[in-house]
Order: sequence, then structure tokens, then C-alpha cells
Amino acid sequence: MNSKGMQLCPGDLLQTSDGKIDREALKALAGQSILNPRQFDRRTVIAIAQLAAVLEMRNVEIDKPLDGKIAITAFFEASTRTRLSFESAVQRLDGKVLSVPDGQVTGVAKGESLADIGEMFNTYGDVVIMRHPETNSMDEIRRNLQRPLINAGNGSGHHPTQALIDWYSLLKWRPELCKDDCPEDRRVHLGIIGTPGSMRAVKSFLRLSLMFANSVKRITLISEMADPVGLDLTEPIEESPIPIDITNDVQEVLPHLDVVYVNSIAFLGDSYRNLDGRYKLDRSSNLKPGSVIMHPLARNDELSEDLDETEHNLYFAQAAGAVFVRQALLTAVLDRLDRISGI
Amino acid sequence: MNSKGMQLCPGDLLQTSDGKIDREALKALAGQSILNPRQFDRRTVIAIAQLAAVLEMRNVEIDKPLDGKIAITAFFEASTRTRLSFESAVQRLDGKVLSVPDGQVTGVAKGESLADIGEMFNTYGDVVIMRHPETNSMDEIRRNLQRPLINAGNGSGHHPTQALIDWYSLLKWRPELCKDDCPEDRRVHLGIIGTPGSMRAVKSFLRLSLMFANSVKRITLISEMADPVGLDLTEPIEESPIPIDITNDVQEVLPHLDVVYVNSIAFLGDSYRNLDGRYKLDRSSNLKPGSVIMHPLARNDELSEDLDETEHNLYFAQAAGAVFVRQALLTAVLDRLDRISGI
Amino acid sequence: MNSKGMQLCPGDLLQTSDGKIDREALKALAGQSILNPRQFDRRTVIAIAQLAAVLEMRNVEIDKPLDGKIAITAFFEASTRTRLSFESAVQRLDGKVLSVPDGQVTGVAKGESLADIGEMFNTYGDVVIMRHPETNSMDEIRRNLQRPLINAGNGSGHHPTQALIDWYSLLKWRPELCKDDCPEDRRVHLGIIGTPGSMRAVKSFLRLSLMFANSVKRITLISEMADPVGLDLTEPIEESPIPIDITNDVQEVLPHLDVVYVNSIAFLGDSYRNLDGRYKLDRSSNLKPGSVIMHPLARNDELSEDLDETEHNLYFAQAAGAVFVRQALLTAVLDRLDRISGI
Repeated sequence: MNSKGMQLCPGDLLQTSDGKIDREALKALAGQSILNPRQFDRRTVIAIAQLAAVLEMRNVEIDKPLDGKIAITAFFEASTRTRLSFESAVQRLDGKVLSVPDGQVTGVAKGESLADIGEMFNTYGDVVIMRHPETNSMDEIRRNLQRPLINAGNGSGHHPTQALIDWYSLLKWRPELCKDDCPEDRRVHLGIIGTPGSMRAVKSFLRLSLMFANSVKRITLISEMADPVGLDLTEPIEESPIPIDITNDVQEVLPHLDVVYVNSIAFLGDSYRNLDGRYKLDRSSNLKPGSVIMHPLARNDELSEDLDETEHNLYFAQAAGAVFVRQALLTAVLDRLDRISGI
Repeated sequence: MNSKGMQLCPGDLLQTSDGKIDREALKALAGQSILNPRQFDRRTVIAIAQLAAVLEMRNVEIDKPLDGKIAITAFFEASTRTRLSFESAVQRLDGKVLSVPDGQVTGVAKGESLADIGEMFNTYGDVVIMRHPETNSMDEIRRNLQRPLINAGNGSGHHPTQALIDWYSLLKWRPELCKDDCPEDRRVHLGIIGTPGSMRAVKSFLRLSLMFANSVKRITLISEMADPVGLDLTEPIEESPIPIDITNDVQEVLPHLDVVYVNSIAFLGDSYRNLDGRYKLDRSSNLKPGSVIMHPLARNDELSEDLDETEHNLYFAQAAGAVFVRQALLTAVLDRLDRISGI
Repeated sequence: MNSKGMQLCPGDLLQTSDGKIDREALKALAGQSILNPRQFDRRTVIAIAQLAAVLEMRNVEIDKPLDGKIAITAFFEASTRTRLSFESAVQRLDGKVLSVPDGQVTGVAKGESLADIGEMFNTYGDVVIMRHPETNSMDEIRRNLQRPLINAGNGSGHHPTQALIDWYSLLKWRPELCKDDCPEDRRVHLGIIGTPGSMRAVKSFLRLSLMFANSVKRITLISEMADPVGLDLTEPIEESPIPIDITNDVQEVLPHLDVVYVNSIAFLGDSYRNLDGRYKLDRSSNLKPGSVIMHPLARNDELSEDLDETEHNLYFAQAAGAVFVRQALLTAVLDRLDRISGI
């Protein structure tokens, strides 16, 4: 449970399908690597969110769905937040963890290739969760890795599990967004402050949002950059029926947005920098009544703490859902749905 | 079991209360944060020590009292000794661990606030064990943290679990110290070589010692500093019925001390330094026969290895008790006393 | 299972003794520290390999042989590969791990002695697995450590578990090497590219190989150094009935070798360097048909990736066996053979 801001109820999300979960969509994930949000469709996103809701409402210790499974958390780029989130998910389900908190420091110093590291992981664990500063790292390790690989962030590439977490909180906040026939007045105008082309979390969130054409009525990108979209998304955006516009005038668009997604950390070439830093949200910002703010965290100055205790704060609830989405995904990938009773 | 020095028997400690443990005092710790030794009283210290004694004598694997619980060990200041001690305690009781071995390096690099980190921990674990170089860190993280927090050392602040460990070894060594009517000839003269004002372990040990007015007959502080006490303890010392004096002449006082507590590592402003380094104990020191030396470890030159094989060495037994005290405290804080059979 | 190269079948190794394992040899390891390959004999090496084969073929989660045991992985020299291999072994058998991924950084900064660290470990865990850059580190920590210690590499000293892993893969590859009466045409000519005197993995492999006088018909050391052998092995080599020669002409000897063991990482004084770097193996090397290449990994330029997909590649199968050998050894040292059903 989050300490401040909006409190979400996972039960509401289950009512949209009379408590039934689309097991078929989840079964299709068994043994799969999760590399790019492109590989999902709307049906799968909703199924994962619904399984996460079940897990959030229930004490799963009794089921012990990952009993006997070992997950390797290989963080070649340190991230306490994401690493612990995955490790908590694994352990809550009674799986075990082999942790590489900082692969840059602790061992690949001998210059071992990612392909050789992938070979090594084959007998060490049952699933590999990797973050790496290089965008092509996922391809590299998969040259020899035979276990499912979960991309926990690769350079300026993707961050698919973050995008699932983002949509989990959106769907809990407004369950009608799941529906094929979402009522017109419940559809949302999404605003994204950031540069999808060089911010993987933002890019993956946008990619998933494009799948919800029935419930997202417009997307506005707010960025200082001339071309914030980047190559990966040019085509999906062109093909999407959702109207998408780009602006650098946050004041003008802010009062129209139902959802404001903020992030400032960008991967440029080989390191992280803050971009779009002149867009700062605080209590004086002209937010639409009833609108919500999302942020993948960690935050810098772009999002003021003075918003924490307002109803615009969806970002704490968003963070609080992360462990459950990762639990759901790991259960599906490791083919242990059958161990969760009553779904 | 320690390899050298005095061997203590936990059973002796239980006989002082006919094997009965003060469950009520322990129950009061359920859900509490453990921040400052000030929050304990003598009764609680003895109850924790007695539960530790039970756990030390018994194989608790069968009970699995922390089954399903996750502890986060968040060490923003690296300390292998203290971190592993807590992690061993958690795992011996069948709990699980999310480990942050070096928070300075691995992740808060993005400049995340402690308040945001506390928010993150809410869904990751059930209890947070934190060490931090800043004294106000415990207040900071508790702005959003809703889980019990155990202070494993905060700057020049406190180290309450170390103080409990210290008293556990004293009470095992001389169980009469538990009693309201400790006989006059069994009461002890404590000497503390160090500067409580800037040494948190020493400060917390002194704070707890002040609660044992019936069994501590005198406390002598031995320090090079003009005012070794510091602000935190000025008032408790004034209010205590125990006579307390300060000296810089270790030669004069040493032959009178029943217990000599040594430490040299001080936190000064923003880093660690060795203080009071001219007081060195070795076999040639004029120690009272039957007296014992305590040290929270790690040690430097202030305590010679040539004392290890003498009966003055209580410090190895002290270290050996650490895991059991932390087991007892975690069991109480996580409200799992009922899982330990037969107490 | 390895992704490329030779695929080995552990069942073949068990058939050499009609599926029977020499329990007596394994029982003798209970409570023992594993410091130097010298402490093994051929019978014990084969027994460990056979237990590893059983574990490789079977899902041991059901047996949970290390339930309730805690292993401390104390890596004072970082090595992700070796540390994770041990931690995977412990967890696959349902034991628990206290991990020190990088002891140089995280805690011994206070200057604590290895002897004091050994004392600390007595109550934290049930077995200590240590890697350390100093050759005398194992003796140092054992001054106070009362738990079994497993040497995971000490300076230019030894690496006994790596040697067991090497021989496990050799024995799976050619099970007749187990036999007292290995047929003449199945006996092998071993070539070792490297400098045993300053390469602990190479040294330990050579030491174990000397025990197989019935199945190794010749050993050739290929090194640039004038005296590659070093003091530790001078005597065992002199006493061995196996003919041993030294050359720096790899071209001349390569076509005669049945097994080529390669490594280039040497410990010289106080750090690691690449030695014998001018010997590079690749597809153009004049390897004997049917011969195999071994490498303890991580590799550098001395072993080309273009050999990975050939039948000479035994090194991936060798790496894949590591976890099982360590499982077997830990089960024996922690006296839990009785928990493994049906052996």
C-alpha cells in the first residue's frame, strides 16, 4: 500500500471480466523472453494486469508458485529500485534469487563477453532478468542463453516490464479502459513529458499505449527536442489510429490532460542525463481536476514532493503495483500458473 | 560458539526467571520501529535477552518463525559484519532477505531521496533494517515508510541492536545482573574507553547501562576528550542514580573495573576516525582478576590479539551472541512469537 | 545443458560402477575443509564426480538436502562466475546463502583481520566458501574459523573445486578414465597451455591429473616461461609415474594431444595478468581429430569463439558441470548424503 496519494483497489480491475482471467493469453508467455513491448497485445497486457490484481489481493505464500525456481538478476547497470522489485517478486512467490547487484564492478572485469555470460547462466538459474547500459546487450547474451530472458532496461532500448506496471496502475485507476467499448467520456487524453527516443521507460509506455486505441483518445508528447519520437516508434505511431501531437508548450496543453506521464532521465549514447528539465510539475501547475500524474521513478526536480499528498499522485500507487506485475509475469514465463489456486 | 576466550551458557540466563520469558514485554514490540535505545526499559532488555537465550539453545529451523516474511537490509554505509549478522538472523528463522550491500554505490546514484526510498520499500518487504552515515536518515526514510524500521547505525546517532547484544553477553556472563536485588558483591564497575558523544555503539551501550541501576555500581568514562558524553546523554546521566565519573588516566582506573568496554571508531562530522587511540589493551595491561573486556568489533590496535586466549576475552562471546539477539528482536517486531514453540 | 559444442551424458559415468557410488569416500569429507587438491585421491575424485552425475540427472528439489544450512560466500576478490556457481549449487539443494560479493569494497575497509572475520563467521553460517587474492588467506581465516572452509581460489595458490569440475567433464567425456585398467588406446595425452606455477586453476588441474596414472599416458606443459611448474608441484611431478615434458612449441605438440587445457590468466605477486598470450587456439589450429579443448573460463583471446560450434569444444560442457560438482561437494562436506534418496 502506498503512503500518500491515490489508493487503488485491484478488485475493481477484476470485475471488468467477472473475475475471470484470460489464461490462454498468459499460457502463451510460458518459456518466452520478454524483450520489447512490441511483443504484447492489448489482450495480454490486460491478462497480466488481472493476474497482478489477483496476486495483490491475495497472500500467495501458501501457493508457493515459484518453489524450486531460481531467478538471476544480472544488473550490469546498477538499479536498486528495479533489482529489489524483481527480487521481492521472486521471493514472495517462494522462488530463489542469484543476485548480481553491479555487474560492471563485480566480475566481468576479466573482460568476459555477454555471450559467454549467457552460456554460464544456462545451468545457474531458470530465468535471467538483465539490465545493461548497451542497447544490443539482449541480443548478445541470447547468442548462447537458453533460458527465458526478461529485459529490465537496455540502454536507450526498452523497458517492457515498466510499461506493464504503468498500464496496471492506469487500468486499476479506470477499469473501463480495459473495455472494447470504453465510453467516450471515460477515454483519456495522455500527455507524456519526455523524449521517447532516448528514454526507454517513456518509449515503452508509449508503445503499449498505442495498443489501447479504444480507450486513449489522444496522445500529446511534450518535449524540447525537435524529433522526440525516435526510430523505434515512427512506424507504430504512423499506423496507430490514435491522434498524436507534439508540443513544447506545457502550459497550453496541461489543463486538457487526463494523464500526465513525466520522466527526465534519458540515455544518450553511453550515459544518463536529465532532459526536458524545464518542465517541472508542482502544486501550482495548472492540472485538470481529476487528472493523474505518473512517473516511473526515481525522480529529480521535474516532479515536486508537494504533489505527493494530492489526488493527482498516481505515481506512488504506480510504484506500489510494480512487485505484483513482476510476480504475474514471472509466474507466466516460468509456466507456473497452475500453482496459483482459484484462477 | 566462539573459538577462544570465555564460553557463556545461555541456560544460566533463563534460570533467573525459572525459564519463563516476559512475553508481554516482547509483544509490545510488535510492529514497532527500533530506533533509539531510549525506547527500551530494563524489563524489555531482559526479555529480549531471554528470548535470544532460548533461540541460542535451540534449533529453530523446525519452527520457521519468519516464514513468508521479507527483510530489507539497506546498508547505505557498507558493513559486512552487521549486514551479515542480520541476514543470518533472518534466514535462520526461515525469513527472506533483500540485500542492499552498498547503497552508496548501487543505485541511489540517481539522487533519489530517502523519503522516496521509504515509499518504495513499502511493497518490497515486511521490515527494513537500515544503516546510514547521516544521523537524521531514520527520520527521513520514515516520512513515507510504513513498515517497521530497525536502526543498524545512523551516523553519530545510535546503534540500539548493538547495545542489546552487549547486554545479552553481560547478562549471560553474570545472570544476577538481571535481578532487582543483585547482591552487592556481584554488582559491577563498568569502564568505557571511548567517546560516547561521537561513537554510536558506545553511546547506545552507555544508554542501556543506565537502566541497570540495581546492578551497575559505578561507570567510569575513559577518554581523551574534554567532554566525551555529548548532548544526547547529558540528561539521562544527570538523572541516573549510578555514579559516573570521567578520567583520562586508564592506568589508575583499570585495576578497579569489572567490565572494560573498548572501542576506537568514531563518527566525526562525515566520516570515521580512530579516537582515543592511545589507550591500548594487551596482556601487560593491569586488568583486575576476573574482569572482562567487551568490544563491538571490528577492532584496530586498541585491543591486542594477545588477549584473545585469556579469560578476559568476553568480546568473542559477545560477537557470537549477536545473531541470536537479532533473531529475538525480529521475531518480536514481526509479531511471530507464537511460532516459537514452548515459550 | 550447454548451448554449443560437445554434449555429455552423466549417465555414462555411473555405468562404470554399475550405478553404485563410493559412499565411504564421500563420508570421509564430512566436516572437512577443502583447501588443496592434494588432499584428494583418485577414489574421492571419482566418487564426487559420480555424485555430481546423480545430481545432474535428477531433480533434487524434492530431497532438499541442504535444508536449514547457511553457506557464506566470502569473495574478497570479486568473481561473479564462481560466486554464482556456488550460490546456485547451495540454493538448488535448498540451502541459504549469505553473500559477500566484493569483500574488498564492502566492509573490511575498517581493517579487520581475516582471523577476526573467521571468528565472526562461526555463528553466521555452516560452511564458508572463500576467494581471496592472498595465498596465505586460508591459513589466516582458519586461525579462528571453526566451520568447514572451501577454497574458491587463493592468490597463486589453489583452486581445488575447479580441478574437480575439470575432471568431472573429462570423466563424463571418457568414462573409461575411471578404471584401474583403462585400455591403452583410451588413455590420453594431456597438453596444458599455461604456467601452473602462477595459475592456480592450471596448477590444481595438473595436481589432480597426476592421480590418474592409469589413464593419463603423458602430460605436456606448453609455456613461455623457463620454469612453469613452480615449487608446489615439483615434488609431486618427480614422484609421478606419468611422463611429463615441457615445450614452448605448440605447433609441434598440438597434433598429438587428446586433451588441450588452456588458460591465460595468471596471478603474479599481487594482481592478474595474461601470460602465454601468444598461444591462441582457433579453427585453423592443427588439433588432433577427436581431441577436446578445456578452459576454466573466463576466456580472453587465447581461445577463439570460432571453436564454440565444433566438437573440440568441451569447455562449455565443462562449465555446465560446475554447479553439480559443487552441489556434490557441499552435500558431502555438510554431511547430508543421507538426504539424497536412492544412492
